[in-house]
Amino acid sequence: MTASSGPGGVFAAALTPLKKDLSPDPGAMIDHFSWLLAQGCDGIAVLGTTGEANSFSLDERLAIIAAVGASGLDPARLLIGTGCCAIPDTVRLTRAALEIGAGGVLMLPPFYYKGVGDDGLFAAFASVIEQVADARLEIYVYHFPRMTGLDISVALLERLVAAYPETVVGLKDSSGDWSNTEAVCRALPGFRTFAGSETFLLPTLRAGGAGSISATANITVRDCAALMRARESAEAEAMQAALSRLRATIEAYPLVGACKHVLAGRHGRPEWERLRPPLLPLGAAQAAALDAALSGLSFELAEAA
Amino acid sequence: MTASSGPGGVFAAALTPLKKDLSPDPGAMIDHFSWLLAQGCDGIAVLGTTGEANSFSLDERLAIIAAVGASGLDPARLLIGTGCCAIPDTVRLTRAALEIGAGGVLMLPPFYYKGVGDDGLFAAFASVIEQVADARLEIYVYHFPRMTGLDISVALLERLVAAYPETVVGLKDSSGDWSNTEAVCRALPGFRTFAGSETFLLPTLRAGGAGSISATANITVRDCAALMRARESAEAEAMQAALSRLRATIEAYPLVGACKHVLAGRHGRPEWERLRPPLLPLGAAQAAALDAALSGLSFELAEAA
Repeated sequence: MTASSGPGGVFAAALTPLKKDLSPDPGAMIDHFSWLLAQGCDGIAVLGTTGEANSFSLDERLAIIAAVGASGLDPARLLIGTGCCAIPDTVRLTRAALEIGAGGVLMLPPFYYKGVGDDGLFAAFASVIEQVADARLEIYVYHFPRMTGLDISVALLERLVAAYPETVVGLKDSSGDWSNTEAVCRALPGFRTFAGSETFLLPTLRAGGAGSISATANITVRDCAALMRARESAEAEAMQAALSRLRATIEAYPLVGACKHVLAGRHGRPEWERLRPPLLPLGAAQAAALDAALSGLSFELAEAA
Repeated sequence: MTASSGPGGVFAAALTPLKKDLSPDPGAMIDHFSWLLAQGCDGIAVLGTTGEANSFSLDERLAIIAAVGASGLDPARLLIGTGCCAIPDTVRLTRAALEIGAGGVLMLPPFYYKGVGDDGLFAAFASVIEQVADARLEIYVYHFPRMTGLDISVALLERLVAAYPETVVGLKDSSGDWSNTEAVCRALPGFRTFAGSETFLLPTLRAGGAGSISATANITVRDCAALMRARESAEAEAMQAALSRLRATIEAYPLVGACKHVLAGRHGRPEWERLRPPLLPLGAAQAAALDAALSGLSFELAEAA
């Protein structure tokens, strides 16, 4: 069992650099995406949780998609986050992603209401698909229960795939629960399942999944890419173990702030520390503790930009 | 201790009627708001959870606010829901609410990210207040942890009130946890605290709070208003107990669908059953069970429109 054709491998859930007024900085953003690809990323998830997408207005998100479309980056290597609480917003962002030729969209379920069940979530995805009404559409369902408070059950995925087999093609599983990722890989061979953390990169590939899409890949990109290249080798297990330790070290801190802090230090660009509320930069003590923890680990730091 | 001057009493978190294409129906909406006020509501919360606000795009919400502003309804009796995930959206909706002279805004915290702590939430509210920069602004913080996954602690409210005493004036507490509502009333005398359910109407008034804002008041409006009038009388306790039984009966079902179902039957208007995904109308079995449960209770059904 292997994932069917389409995006796969190591993806960064890319950070979004901000200007002084905390609006997105499209120029710095494109530089960052280019750098990630140059460091070995197979692709980039734009406007995900790590990218602070839900802290941006619809207009800000449309501007980001347009900037990416005009950047010259290969759009087939991009997954664009488009899932909002309101279906009309999801439809608009999804159409914009199609217009730039994105490799797919990463779609959160509408995440305000809880307890809506499989029927409510199916109706929401179906409504988006039918309103977008575009044969090019390829959706990666974005499962992040800690943020959404919603379950994307295997039964729901099976129902979506049965109804829209050409459209609902994959999953990003940010549950952090390997048994769930494995269950999806088993239930839906050929479905392009990405783990939400590089901790599960090798297991996901071995279970027939597509790869990983992760926040920490903004930092660990070279180690992720090295493991991806060496995945069939005798060293793969040890490389995965080292990568998992690295991930665990970083995710002990607020993840977006931690990744931005490490990048700021690596590139010598303090403006990378900016986050839009409700997310905040790491406090000084947290930042020092993270720096100390990382200095004790051996990993292949990506080149400074 | 009594609430300081401003909106108070029994508020309905008003349902939003939808057209056949599941877009908001402004005409039917204004009719419903007028009817609620005629039945005895002291005021209306527009674009709350019950109103399916987060399922509407920014443009749809702005159109609803404009329709309310043009309706001739007394804007001082209206609280407008304006809290979104993205601060620029919250700012725009809040400005629109001020433009129509609304009695206040009901503001959810940015609710996508979890675990952001008091500092992150304080920064988000502060950013909105400073960007709106309007002395007329009166915010009712909207605490609904089941939907947001976020805690609005008493310490956070105290900090907001200390920083913005003229602006952060009240709370809607939809936690369903009376000990929390009571703690806020004790900690912040003069703060206009609304319970999120009429189950706590009398206790909230007695603790110095402002009243209740509830979904079920779309149905129980006359009983709520009767209790509000009789709150100092010997009958108040028994009226509260009957009202609480009524609320418990309805809230055993998905709340927005249940309220729309009862209104559809009461008014003989099946179009009231429409909801936008991820919310769905009650299934036939649920609807029959709710009808049966309500038929066994004595309550003062509001007049048909």
